[in-house]
Amino acid sequence: MRLMLTIGFNMTRMSDDYANLTELLNQVVTATGDFHKSLSDRPVGARKWDVVSDIELPAQGVGSSEALREFLARHGANLSGSVGPRFLGYVTGGTTPAAMAGDWLAAAVDQNAASPGDSAAVAVAVQTLDWLKQLFNLPVDAFDGAFTTGATGANFASLLIAREWAGEQVGYDIAKRGMAGAPPIAIYSACPHSSFVKVTRYLGLGENAIRPVARLAETEAMDPTSLEKLLSAAPSGEQKIVCASAGTVTTNAFDDLVALSSICKRHNAWLHVDGAFGLFARTVPELADRTSGIERADSITVDAHKWLNVPYDSGFYFTRRVDLIERATGALPAYLDVEGKGLPHYVNRALESSQRFRALPIWMTLAAYGAAGVRDIVRRNCQQAKSLADWIEASPAFELLAPTTLNVVCFRAIPPAEQEDGDAWNRGFLKALNETGDVFMTPGAYAGKTGIRAAFSNWMTVQEDLDRVTNAMHTTARTFSARRQETE
Amino acid sequence: MRLMLTIGFNMTRMSDDYANLTELLNQVVTATGDFHKSLSDRPVGARKWDVVSDIELPAQGVGSSEALREFLARHGANLSGSVGPRFLGYVTGGTTPAAMAGDWLAAAVDQNAASPGDSAAVAVAVQTLDWLKQLFNLPVDAFDGAFTTGATGANFASLLIAREWAGEQVGYDIAKRGMAGAPPIAIYSACPHSSFVKVTRYLGLGENAIRPVARLAETEAMDPTSLEKLLSAAPSGEQKIVCASAGTVTTNAFDDLVALSSICKRHNAWLHVDGAFGLFARTVPELADRTSGIERADSITVDAHKWLNVPYDSGFYFTRRVDLIERATGALPAYLDVEGKGLPHYVNRALESSQRFRALPIWMTLAAYGAAGVRDIVRRNCQQAKSLADWIEASPAFELLAPTTLNVVCFRAIPPAEQEDGDAWNRGFLKALNETGDVFMTPGAYAGKTGIRAAFSNWMTVQEDLDRVTNAMHTTARTFSARRQETE
Repeated sequence: MRLMLTIGFNMTRMSDDYANLTELLNQVVTATGDFHKSLSDRPVGARKWDVVSDIELPAQGVGSSEALREFLARHGANLSGSVGPRFLGYVTGGTTPAAMAGDWLAAAVDQNAASPGDSAAVAVAVQTLDWLKQLFNLPVDAFDGAFTTGATGANFASLLIAREWAGEQVGYDIAKRGMAGAPPIAIYSACPHSSFVKVTRYLGLGENAIRPVARLAETEAMDPTSLEKLLSAAPSGEQKIVCASAGTVTTNAFDDLVALSSICKRHNAWLHVDGAFGLFARTVPELADRTSGIERADSITVDAHKWLNVPYDSGFYFTRRVDLIERATGALPAYLDVEGKGLPHYVNRALESSQRFRALPIWMTLAAYGAAGVRDIVRRNCQQAKSLADWIEASPAFELLAPTTLNVVCFRAIPPAEQEDGDAWNRGFLKALNETGDVFMTPGAYAGKTGIRAAFSNWMTVQEDLDRVTNAMHTTARTFSARRQETE
Repeated sequence: MRLMLTIGFNMTRMSDDYANLTELLNQVVTATGDFHKSLSDRPVGARKWDVVSDIELPAQGVGSSEALREFLARHGANLSGSVGPRFLGYVTGGTTPAAMAGDWLAAAVDQNAASPGDSAAVAVAVQTLDWLKQLFNLPVDAFDGAFTTGATGANFASLLIAREWAGEQVGYDIAKRGMAGAPPIAIYSACPHSSFVKVTRYLGLGENAIRPVARLAETEAMDPTSLEKLLSAAPSGEQKIVCASAGTVTTNAFDDLVALSSICKRHNAWLHVDGAFGLFARTVPELADRTSGIERADSITVDAHKWLNVPYDSGFYFTRRVDLIERATGALPAYLDVEGKGLPHYVNRALESSQRFRALPIWMTLAAYGAAGVRDIVRRNCQQAKSLADWIEASPAFELLAPTTLNVVCFRAIPPAEQEDGDAWNRGFLKALNETGDVFMTPGAYAGKTGIRAAFSNWMTVQEDLDRVTNAMHTTARTFSARRQETE
């Protein structure tokens, strides 16, 4: 029997596009080349965009080529140069050519990497995770993990695992029975990243479960003595999760993980380390000692769209107890197990049930540039941060808020003597600086003061970019001062 | 001051790749063309992959072009043809040319769509969500939402919102204080998708919070009378969340949302609808009545990498109370608000703190093919399902397990008379069928029997594919029978 199917105009349009796929994709290649060539002139942080007033859904559409042209004409100029070398906001990496090629190929072949039943994608993911463990000098057999959408996804999975571990301590199945009747769980942290607070709320632990641990004098690092005291004084029956930092966002502080892991062992506490970018210090021999002890952690968060320079969304986690998230998820019917030939079902290791083949851009990065490539980026970005910090120290218009020890410079524009509100002055200065379009930085609070952060994490940044950044800082400091004096 | 930075060998290699970016990307275009040309001969579900034995991380790497070549040589043949027209497993869509172009461009410009501070990406996301509301005929002003990594991410956000709503009913802030002291929360559902169970566990509600509602006779749809009874009998003080389905995965059953929304209103229950693929029925006039009442829901889950045919990972949700997830997240320092010019901070609406520009492939799809393009795909896939169901009804080797009413055919290979275990027979048959490489289907249980599901959701599928699928079914039924008789 043969039933003829109606094929409409738009199906024909898709088929035409598909017949001309190479031509269409070549247009994307051209647009990509044009965009990347524009990085030098494009405002690093775009400040303009169309107000969304035209909200009518196209009834028929205009075809792919025309849609691409329309998008670029309407929005192209208002895209940020964030992938380029002078975006120093947040901790935003760029994209290496290999990673971009890998990401494109991931979309083109569109494998579902959640289950090993129908493709090599899961085998590639396993290999890529092994490579990453080697890159970070972690014991390959002790840790397992999965890819996530970023550090927040990795923190989410890690804290979920820690939560289930806490239940396991008293034989209470949280996934099944919920948090409502669970044993008390407390989270000890000195300087938790905002994403960590977010996942604490999402997981039903509640933000109030976070117990602030004291910091060592004049740093964001955890005071081990304070932690030891708090854990000793904890109510009996409380389950303890310690969240440590390998590289805080504002000042790059590293917790003493050797000390913390011993304390956690003594008090039967879970040790989670947010190493989303600080773990990369481990790839550089002269910086590697900062993360000593991380190999004893129970779970580790890593980001890939930051210092690994792959496109969004990309992260992963490592843990000694991947069985806990697999059990807590348990979405997998038993009969599918045989099809995996021993490979993991990532559907049970991350929030996503279907999963983009996000191992591929990382595989491509590591295959193309190797461990040395990652080390080069990290080392150069640290040198660049040091170079900017030196310039700031030598400048009368700026001061460092904290020592520069890795890739982040935390500083402050010195307000004129008559200007009492230094925080407001710095917010105004930052806005003016970002409006030059030469650089994009983000604010940061440290030691009770509002300052400015410059984070280096893009593979492309070179001396010329640093020069342009310091020129913009210099000029903005002068014009901003003059402008403010006029209006006062 | 000018500090000369050491530039290593691998930095040079990245720069060389970047200088030759167009050439590299053209290699990806060629590889993409080759892959797509291979779809007709490639096994739909690949059955082979390298065992991961070579786990040594490259020290130096081989450059992008060589890495691409190496990947394709080693793994290319073992990638699944899941993006093609005969992958009928799960509910897996393909990728339209426009969506692929949009996804590539998203990687190339690599905007962070989480905050509106530095790019037009958020404005584009707002417009795209508006278009989607129009596509699904939902009131644009009543609903807001965000993009997620898929239906599971959308279910997660929706249920998080519902959880916070439950706390709000009694003035208890769950995000802050945790689930441990929260009011009792129950979730009523007749046929929850596995991802829904997953997020119930993740959010600390616990799987046991799910109260099974009876189904109407011989369908997977919820019995409204049973729901009404259960809600009436619920303990006082219990907060109620009803999870309804617009299109179940196995038999495409639609809950009566008009009836359910009235019941929810009477009992002050939150109405969540998983419309991840069933909502698409709403784009086709002759099917639109199935989702009547969905416009009264409190939250709705939608998937995009399924029937919208964009690459992984892509989904979104709509809700009337987006303020609840924003409040529960609250990751945003107040001073960043001014920079948004009234646009939302998506960082507070999804798990991810940084977010890929995943509106772009959807924007491109809708701009290129319009509402008519989506409608064409849905309509044709439904016709194809009907056509396969007719063939099955006419065949002596197969029988339908449930009527085919949308895009999923749920059927069963009829075992020979002497074969007592029909479930085992069907599992064996499915394995043999998938091994032909002509089609990939997944199992499904219905009415106490193990059956097989064929879900049509790819834009490319045409009559020739159906012919190939039915040929494979016919041949496998014969050879599988013969083989089994030999061994018995």
